[in-house]
Amino acid sequence: MNINNIASPGNVSRGERELLTGQRGATIWFTGISASGKSTIAIALEKALYERGILSYRLDGDNLRLGINNNLGYSQEHRKENVRRAGEISKIVCDAGLLALSSFISPYRIDRESVRNSHEESGISFVEVFVDCSTEEAERRDPKGLYKRARGNEIKNFTGVDHPYEPPESPDIHLRSDVMTLEQEIKKLLEFIKINNILGEKSKQ
Amino acid sequence: MNINNIASPGNVSRGERELLTGQRGATIWFTGISASGKSTIAIALEKALYERGILSYRLDGDNLRLGINNNLGYSQEHRKENVRRAGEISKIVCDAGLLALSSFISPYRIDRESVRNSHEESGISFVEVFVDCSTEEAERRDPKGLYKRARGNEIKNFTGVDHPYEPPESPDIHLRSDVMTLEQEIKKLLEFIKINNILGEKSKQ
Repeated sequence: MNINNIASPGNVSRGERELLTGQRGATIWFTGISASGKSTIAIALEKALYERGILSYRLDGDNLRLGINNNLGYSQEHRKENVRRAGEISKIVCDAGLLALSSFISPYRIDRESVRNSHEESGISFVEVFVDCSTEEAERRDPKGLYKRARGNEIKNFTGVDHPYEPPESPDIHLRSDVMTLEQEIKKLLEFIKINNILGEKSKQ
Repeated sequence: MNINNIASPGNVSRGERELLTGQRGATIWFTGISASGKSTIAIALEKALYERGILSYRLDGDNLRLGINNNLGYSQEHRKENVRRAGEISKIVCDAGLLALSSFISPYRIDRESVRNSHEESGISFVEVFVDCSTEEAERRDPKGLYKRARGNEIKNFTGVDHPYEPPESPDIHLRSDVMTLEQEIKKLLEFIKINNILGEKSKQ
């Protein structure tokens, strides 16, 4: 059934909301294998931005899977849907006039491109950050013991073990999380945001 | 497969984000039959709040069905999922420190209660607004011609025609949209928000 949904644009535009927040909506998207450091970096960036008075909202796979995505598993189809919904929610956060910090393994290039296109079609900046860490190092860290369980066949479809990860070919930011310190990573991210005017000209930063 | 998702709380709390936005996160949820005036009222409230410097974000069925909910139809199961996702996104908007204005037919009492409970468990205010309009009046308005198509059997499962609507038994706010003017409705909403301190003590209102 098609009942011709038409988006009602309302009387307040994204631009007007951005005047209230004092910054532009944008998404910083962290992609990388499990235990590469995506969430750790996003959490540290969130804190650094907060200290500068910048409104951001952090979305990640674990949190969304406890709420809106609690009906999704780890099949290829469900991973695609997980990333699609994460992209749509990131756009909502941006449309509200905030910066979305979205960390998702998002293993498929085509799905990440789809999220980027969907942002750019709406005139919203999308910054892809590749959190690049060797599988060996990620497996050595293994904070949740997931690699161990995947190697023991207790978990199936685990990215990097029996499920592919397609690294970005030209990420906006490339972080080598197995050699850089967290401080170096945050510095690089803050510089990129500033130099590329991600938050808009009149922003607080 | 259960890989024990654990929500990572991060270093910035909702309370801290609310310090930046200067208001508390909360959801105003508009429920009512098609053409009852939910979106019209939400759009007018959004404007009135914006003029007072209050950050809000409006979510509605049509907009979400173009994006995150574009894979849902109108069966009972899909309507439940539509409302569930809408509730989760409302909570995200609140968690970011903003006011969510959510207008969804949300025909089932149990689904609305579930959204309320989920908010209250997270310590977030949930205000249910019953946009009460007789089917006769809604059908007379019929801005999208949907009632006509439902009567002609062109649309199935249409709330109020061949699908039930369960009115709230004790809504926080009851708007009789077939007898009140839009101005009266907005006045009532703003007063409720103020008297019940929905935006927090130190808010701009």
